[in-house]
Amino acid sequence: MEPFKVHILGCGSALPTLKHNATSQVVDIRGKLFMIDCGEGTQVQLRRSRIRFTKIGAVFISHLHGDHCFGLIGMISTFGLLGRTAALHVYAPAELGPMLRTQLDFFCGGIEFEVVFHAIDTTVKQVIYEDKSLTVESIPLEHRIACCGFLFREKGLLPHIRRDMIDFYRIPISQINNIKLGADWVDDEGRTVSNERLVTPADPARAYAYCSDTRYMPRLHEVVQGVNTLYHEATYDSSMASRARLYFHSTAEEAAKVARDAGVGKLVLGHYSARYEAEDILLAEAKTIFPNTILAQEGLEIDV
Amino acid sequence: MEPFKVHILGCGSALPTLKHNATSQVVDIRGKLFMIDCGEGTQVQLRRSRIRFTKIGAVFISHLHGDHCFGLIGMISTFGLLGRTAALHVYAPAELGPMLRTQLDFFCGGIEFEVVFHAIDTTVKQVIYEDKSLTVESIPLEHRIACCGFLFREKGLLPHIRRDMIDFYRIPISQINNIKLGADWVDDEGRTVSNERLVTPADPARAYAYCSDTRYMPRLHEVVQGVNTLYHEATYDSSMASRARLYFHSTAEEAAKVARDAGVGKLVLGHYSARYEAEDILLAEAKTIFPNTILAQEGLEIDV
Repeated sequence: MEPFKVHILGCGSALPTLKHNATSQVVDIRGKLFMIDCGEGTQVQLRRSRIRFTKIGAVFISHLHGDHCFGLIGMISTFGLLGRTAALHVYAPAELGPMLRTQLDFFCGGIEFEVVFHAIDTTVKQVIYEDKSLTVESIPLEHRIACCGFLFREKGLLPHIRRDMIDFYRIPISQINNIKLGADWVDDEGRTVSNERLVTPADPARAYAYCSDTRYMPRLHEVVQGVNTLYHEATYDSSMASRARLYFHSTAEEAAKVARDAGVGKLVLGHYSARYEAEDILLAEAKTIFPNTILAQEGLEIDV
Repeated sequence: MEPFKVHILGCGSALPTLKHNATSQVVDIRGKLFMIDCGEGTQVQLRRSRIRFTKIGAVFISHLHGDHCFGLIGMISTFGLLGRTAALHVYAPAELGPMLRTQLDFFCGGIEFEVVFHAIDTTVKQVIYEDKSLTVESIPLEHRIACCGFLFREKGLLPHIRRDMIDFYRIPISQINNIKLGADWVDDEGRTVSNERLVTPADPARAYAYCSDTRYMPRLHEVVQGVNTLYHEATYDSSMASRARLYFHSTAEEAAKVARDAGVGKLVLGHYSARYEAEDILLAEAKTIFPNTILAQEGLEIDV
């Protein structure tokens, strides 16, 4: 299968620590890279990760708290210094637009690429990005300010060619793409070989859901139903559930409930409060409800 | 002597690397802390340094290139989360004022301290900050945009009391401050003991000059004459002198010429181009002209 990965660049929360950077991730779908959130220091984490800067075509910002967007202007500025020419698309709540424009005009006068801003309506679930290989949908979340998650879903996966049948019917290479797209084959004697004899079904489309920051949403599972991997914030452990509610964050237990109810393949916890020296307590708590849980950490590469 | 130190938080240039952070320093004069420049990632470097955040009363921004100021909003935001209440003074070229205001209004609505902005005229040398123990002067520099350095100078140093004379004349503790301030002493028999018999001279006032970013200024030495420590940018080695001129930066040799001509105590090089794996070449070059040169590096604490 072609790669569908998530690189964790930062999974801390509002206060950066020496252990965790502010939030940022890079989603790699078959070699196309998308960034989610861009807290301060993201460009250095990107450099550390050895991800090819130039392959990032779009940045999705979940909400306008500093730990999710203060690194954007510095990263764009550095892209400019490195000679980027391809447009960079920024998807974010509308208020970022004019602020970013002011900063770009002042600090990035000489850059040779366009920064295209797309305002997201965080209150609705809708496709905000689409190309021939994937869609990205917004996931309305419940935070102190306008905030949404993102659902990355593969699309347009083609069936696999049955090599043995291609050989048997002596089908020329030139026809393989048509057959992948559904064509039957007519042999020299005019007999039709139906498409379904020539292919095996496509791999199931994979999906990755990013949900941060949000308080526990009892019906969120409906939106992320069956995704292969769910990243859900787990700022606190259960002993701080009331604090979580107050600040519109989640506990690890709540994140696990969403994963369980959605029947996801794997749960990734992140957005840890700076108060935790180690996040084992969060992991243990989540695992009692949803065993296939892992902790995000800087540098981690997750196979979706 | 009371401390007068400089903490290097970052000494890289426009492109952050895994080795060097964007520019920032903290000057500690007798326990009062002042920040110079605040590139992206400064707040994490500050945390790493174990400097007490709350003791930083003012930030001086030399110029509005991102590697000298992109970390400011994140640091202020973190100060807010940590419950700071004391005002923070920001001294910077005027254009930063409205941009910072917009960011503060949007991102830092809940902070409980005032951010007081002071526009600096970078074209003149003048006192921009003064309290009873020091002055900070602007140093006009020649960069691609408005830019100035900063000269920190102790003032109001009092003479040392001669303990032996105090004992001999049985002068009460209550009079010591008056004597430090210049009073004579009149003993029980009405005889006057002149002040100069009771004290030894004050330590010489110390000074620290920060000059970054700038191209070589043949007359800069007049402005920083005799300072104890000079930080001067050395973006390039001499083989790149024409590039240095073109981008309004300096070579290590040029930095050393300023130090030599100014007769400073010690030269600190910094603002290294990302092209240098190691900066030994810069150090060696500078030392041929000014032997008492050191390389800035993250975490270094310099005694002025």
